[in-house]
Amino acid sequence: MSETTKPKSMDEIMALCKRRGFIYPASEIYGGINGFWDYGPLGAQLKKNLRDAWWEDVVLIPCRGAHGPDGQPVSIVPLDTCIIQNPKVWVASGHVGGFTDPMSTCRQCKKLFRADHVADALQEAPWVQALVVELGAPEWRMDAALGAAPAASLERWARKEGRKRAPGAWLVRSLAAEGADPAAITSGAPGTWGALLHWVATGTALGGSFVAACPNCGGDLTEPRQFNLMFHSYTGAVFDEENKVWLRPETAQGIFTNFRNVVDTTRVRVPFGIAQTGKAFRNEVTPRNFTFRSREFEQMEIEFFCHPDDARAWYEFWRKERLAWWQGIGLAGENLRLREHERDELAHYARDGAGTSDIEYRFPFTAPGFGELEGIAHRSDYDLRQHQEHSGQRLDYFDHERGEIGPNGQRKGERYLPHVIEPSAGLDRGVLALLCEAFTVDPARPSGIVMRFHPRVAPIKAAVFPLVNKDGLPEIATKLAADLTRRFARLGGTIECDAKQSIGKRDARMDEAGCPFCFTVDGDTLKDQSVTVRYRDTGAQERLAIEKVEEFLGERLGEGR
Amino acid sequence: MSETTKPKSMDEIMALCKRRGFIYPASEIYGGINGFWDYGPLGAQLKKNLRDAWWEDVVLIPCRGAHGPDGQPVSIVPLDTCIIQNPKVWVASGHVGGFTDPMSTCRQCKKLFRADHVADALQEAPWVQALVVELGAPEWRMDAALGAAPAASLERWARKEGRKRAPGAWLVRSLAAEGADPAAITSGAPGTWGALLHWVATGTALGGSFVAACPNCGGDLTEPRQFNLMFHSYTGAVFDEENKVWLRPETAQGIFTNFRNVVDTTRVRVPFGIAQTGKAFRNEVTPRNFTFRSREFEQMEIEFFCHPDDARAWYEFWRKERLAWWQGIGLAGENLRLREHERDELAHYARDGAGTSDIEYRFPFTAPGFGELEGIAHRSDYDLRQHQEHSGQRLDYFDHERGEIGPNGQRKGERYLPHVIEPSAGLDRGVLALLCEAFTVDPARPSGIVMRFHPRVAPIKAAVFPLVNKDGLPEIATKLAADLTRRFARLGGTIECDAKQSIGKRDARMDEAGCPFCFTVDGDTLKDQSVTVRYRDTGAQERLAIEKVEEFLGERLGEGR
Repeated sequence: MSETTKPKSMDEIMALCKRRGFIYPASEIYGGINGFWDYGPLGAQLKKNLRDAWWEDVVLIPCRGAHGPDGQPVSIVPLDTCIIQNPKVWVASGHVGGFTDPMSTCRQCKKLFRADHVADALQEAPWVQALVVELGAPEWRMDAALGAAPAASLERWARKEGRKRAPGAWLVRSLAAEGADPAAITSGAPGTWGALLHWVATGTALGGSFVAACPNCGGDLTEPRQFNLMFHSYTGAVFDEENKVWLRPETAQGIFTNFRNVVDTTRVRVPFGIAQTGKAFRNEVTPRNFTFRSREFEQMEIEFFCHPDDARAWYEFWRKERLAWWQGIGLAGENLRLREHERDELAHYARDGAGTSDIEYRFPFTAPGFGELEGIAHRSDYDLRQHQEHSGQRLDYFDHERGEIGPNGQRKGERYLPHVIEPSAGLDRGVLALLCEAFTVDPARPSGIVMRFHPRVAPIKAAVFPLVNKDGLPEIATKLAADLTRRFARLGGTIECDAKQSIGKRDARMDEAGCPFCFTVDGDTLKDQSVTVRYRDTGAQERLAIEKVEEFLGERLGEGR
Repeated sequence: MSETTKPKSMDEIMALCKRRGFIYPASEIYGGINGFWDYGPLGAQLKKNLRDAWWEDVVLIPCRGAHGPDGQPVSIVPLDTCIIQNPKVWVASGHVGGFTDPMSTCRQCKKLFRADHVADALQEAPWVQALVVELGAPEWRMDAALGAAPAASLERWARKEGRKRAPGAWLVRSLAAEGADPAAITSGAPGTWGALLHWVATGTALGGSFVAACPNCGGDLTEPRQFNLMFHSYTGAVFDEENKVWLRPETAQGIFTNFRNVVDTTRVRVPFGIAQTGKAFRNEVTPRNFTFRSREFEQMEIEFFCHPDDARAWYEFWRKERLAWWQGIGLAGENLRLREHERDELAHYARDGAGTSDIEYRFPFTAPGFGELEGIAHRSDYDLRQHQEHSGQRLDYFDHERGEIGPNGQRKGERYLPHVIEPSAGLDRGVLALLCEAFTVDPARPSGIVMRFHPRVAPIKAAVFPLVNKDGLPEIATKLAADLTRRFARLGGTIECDAKQSIGKRDARMDEAGCPFCFTVDGDTLKDQSVTVRYRDTGAQERLAIEKVEEFLGERLGEGR
């Protein structure tokens, strides 16, 4: 790993996020709540700017006017659908039946685990590590053959480390019982690591592949059962199955259920897309990595409907288009990549399709690996077909521009269920990537840190400082800031005007907030009507006539973009 | 009521909303879901435009640069907090204990009623109306003395109308029973209407004030019990009280819980405001009036923090400011009003304060009355004090600019809990008001209906039509539309370009979509480089040089606003 790709410190980034008001733990004064984060003043604007940039480039000026593989402008219309929908939606989409994680509880300490994470957790469990040391084993792997474990070692571990670190383990509890016979108890130890841990925890032989040992206390785990990741609630005053509803786990289904309505009430023609942004919820068992895997998050999703024959071409188009979009918003370096899924990674609905790709970012907590920012999936006609079957409503599309040419010279048309290419992005993950990418340690600056946001998303667009708080300088600064606010604030950020503290401290604060341009009004301004502009990224400064400041900013903030 | 204030037809407005893709019933292909609505392509953009206009005028350029009662620019920062928060937030805010409606169930037909709505519902119940007729009573009022009800009339009613319309009523069931003694049964009839209905339904004397008669079937209602309007769910895999969480019923509390964080991590000074928009949920027992009272809705809230002594001045400021804002966005007529609450309407936290006002709109379903769009409340220090007590965290504010002047000439400062003025608006209600206000019947137009949206919120900003689909006109139109899109789409709307159907039909479609300006490219355009512009509101047309179109639109779409 080269010096330049050395991971940034996630702790430092989180500290800055708190210190400068980008992101706070939700309900912090009450000790927080696991998996939920609030955006502070700078974060709220940054998040809105990213969402608005997406909306502008997807809905208002789709692909910024670029043409699709059919040679026509790309056509996209928006929606804004509810978080709570008729529960049948989630039966049809497969979420009620299949959106589950296998969960297992410890019968001793009652802790809950994702069954498919237990093996990894055991690897790091202190009681397992102590056992590895006791048995003199070099490195631990679940499927490694161990040979016979010496009974004396097992007993020694159980009476000392085991008692401390694995009080729930069957072996520990058995040996501690009144009148226990150590020889009889330890005689059953099996010969692979997985089987040994299972036996230590449960006193039984490993049957299948699930090692039912609690990483926390060494106790015996229940058989895994499927746990649905959707939050549930109830509408009305009676909390029974009939009134049970779900919080949407994705915004996509609100688009599919409205496909017919959109086709019937607007003038869209296939190929076209429907886009929306909005909150979604997943009851993650182990939320982690700051806002990367939280329980409440926001998505930006496009469902693009096309003829099945054109799906591959549109899939290729959207892969390139979406990657270019993230690059254009400031993730331009080697931390961003496009990765085609392997065949065995594909979701059931994507098996026969053109494929699935992820746009991934190298977050500090995934480095040197990458984490998903956006998925581009060919979902075939899976969703429309499911909703058609479950609702009994026809969701197919009659395409006048296809089919054989009839005797009158007109095409006969073709009826089909469109295929769907879905570019589905995480807004919170996008914000997190922008924060990580922008975060730059620079010991040469007073702040030590500069946030290099792309001007388009920066939550503060510019700052105006009077060098000193007298001699008429504050009045000039205030007027300039007001003029700039009037013209540029609607691009998604404030214009700061600040007369307190030294210029160095003010610059430092703006560096940490990611403000791209600071203008200083000084004594010379009174003489020659010019100000100093300081570039955040380089720290370079130059003089500029006050009357040129608006033009200067207009070009750099992408006003005429 | 004058002709001009005649209520518009809500059925027609809802039909247009569906037909043109403003609003659809949520999950419509599954038969919908009571109390939830989805926004279609035009509605999604209209709603975003209203939200963005609020954000621009509240967060980015607070009050458009106007000064507050302290003579300083108004200072506001944004937040974006979670829907799900630590449940202690809702205990402290009073919502767990007090955000309830009294509910009552019919023991016979099992229907559920808001207990405080039963009296009104009885007034319109067919079985009650039949009883009024039978008893020859003039007008019915719950507390009206009735005199003795003739036993024969009661029996006649019970055997005919009552059997049909009130099969659950005790009187009806008793008289229908085998071996019933009509004289004994009807002898107990009491002498006021309320007592009579209670007795008819239950066979017992009215004890308190609650008439326990089912408006639906005449059966006996259960005693009212308090039902919390917050939706609940659970985090994690165990669905018990410990893991119970609530969906926020308002965005305000996310602001109060972050007050300390915002003060500590930004440079705000009291007086200042914190603003956010976002979804909130209320499990309304009877959602009604289209999107006016739905179960999932969006709020736009400001919590403005000030010194207690200044609360009245800020309250007055925000009342005027917010009324002017709604007027500026297109609700300028007599359908909008500001109403000060009567003393007995005030919430508990507002009793000792400067007051509460509602900005109200005359919706077709409230006319000639009004319905709330936004409330401006002086909440005193109620919320900060509650959260301070429940969290054990200090939430008071140290104000350096107050207190006595010390010997060094500096003020000593003052520590206090700020008071709060809360302008809290409903985004969905705002959109509904814009739709109702814009909806205009005009039989002289081909569409018969024109939507007169303010250009700032209109979801389609302009349309460009080639008169005929040949002779190079489509190319000119396409180029003009692309130029206008590049410059104006970011203001929150698309530029339509449409070559199909007659100009009349295209104009009609744009009238119903509320597009303020249509430009037609025709044969003369080829000669003199001019187009026809048609004004939506008047239908007037005039010629304009193509090169002047951008300037024309820039002025009218408020580009330099």
